Amino acid sequence: MTDTPAPTGRQAILRAARRAFALHPYAEVTLRGIAADAEVSASLIVKLFGTKEELFARTTDFSADADELLDAPLDGLGRHLVLTLVRTRRQRRTDPLLRVVFALGTEDERTLLRDRFREQVTTRLAALLPGDDPLLRAELVVGQLLGLGAAASIHREDGAIGEASPERLADLYAPGLQRLLDGA
Amino acid sequence: MTDTPAPTGRQAILRAARRAFALHPYAEVTLRGIAADAEVSASLIVKLFGTKEELFARTTDFSADADELLDAPLDGLGRHLVLTLVRTRRQRRTDPLLRVVFALGTEDERTLLRDRFREQVTTRLAALLPGDDPLLRAELVVGQLLGLGAAASIHREDGAIGEASPERLADLYAPGLQRLLDGA
Repeated sequence: MTDTPAPTGRQAILRAARRAFALHPYAEVTLRGIAADAEVSASLIVKLFGTKEELFARTTDFSADADELLDAPLDGLGRHLVLTLVRTRRQRRTDPLLRVVFALGTEDERTLLRDRFREQVTTRLAALLPGDDPLLRAELVVGQLLGLGAAASIHREDGAIGEASPERLADLYAPGLQRLLDGA
Repeated sequence: MTDTPAPTGRQAILRAARRAFALHPYAEVTLRGIAADAEVSASLIVKLFGTKEELFARTTDFSADADELLDAPLDGLGRHLVLTLVRTRRQRRTDPLLRVVFALGTEDERTLLRDRFREQVTTRLAALLPGDDPLLRAELVVGQLLGLGAAASIHREDGAIGEASPERLADLYAPGLQRLLDGA
């Protein structure tokens, strides 16, 4: 996790927005608060993302991340998933999927986050899979990916995952993913 | 996820306490609030768990869960981990590990939760593993387990994981775990 560039204003805003919507009820979140956290002006947020509602919709959208994660042939998808997830975490200092876990255990508007995730990530992946029980296997693949991000975060940058190369992580973690994808 | 019994007072208190400490700063958490959430009296909490500090220490302890998860020979540990995690989730309506993810992204006293988790789960597992990079492989095993709980929660009880038997989940998800445990 060295040599990571500072996030751009756009990335800093998205990160601050995800944090704000994860930690506080929608009604309590303000663009002013997000701007302060992102160290930008509120007017820059409005210029880049529009209203609070539009920013919320953007933070609950996983389709661009799913595009990148799923951009490989099925027979190499396990490895591509690990490499893409790890590189995205390191380059952008954010996990492409993990924000969905902050929606666990709540029953308010964050239900939207789970529903979007299922539709944009899990169901889309399941449609690519041959063999039996594609939805079950897709849910388990998604779980294994969420777990990689969670383990990297819990064990921090000085943990063994943080110190390992993306290729080494793919060597260890991708075979289990590929097995689920293949339905062997 | 049918036929799960209602949680006992003790389990309801622990669940409410984990939720309270995950969602609010320590100073803002009260035994009265936890009691209301658990639908018990505050005096029952004091009787069973003692002070707020003692209850907090209890909610950040993973050693009893690690005892159960790791109670199998290494050559069958992958399957035992999946079966134990799934059965615990269904019988107790709580995940043995997943509460640690609520400590992500915060920098206050919840750091303790991550540190305890590393010590009581990851480091303990690493000490059991033969082969190269045992700590890295232990972090990845822990990730895969956290991901199973996260995926089950995100996709809800009517999702494919929620509908599958523990044995079917072990058939699909344990081989990847066992490979990491064996260091093949």
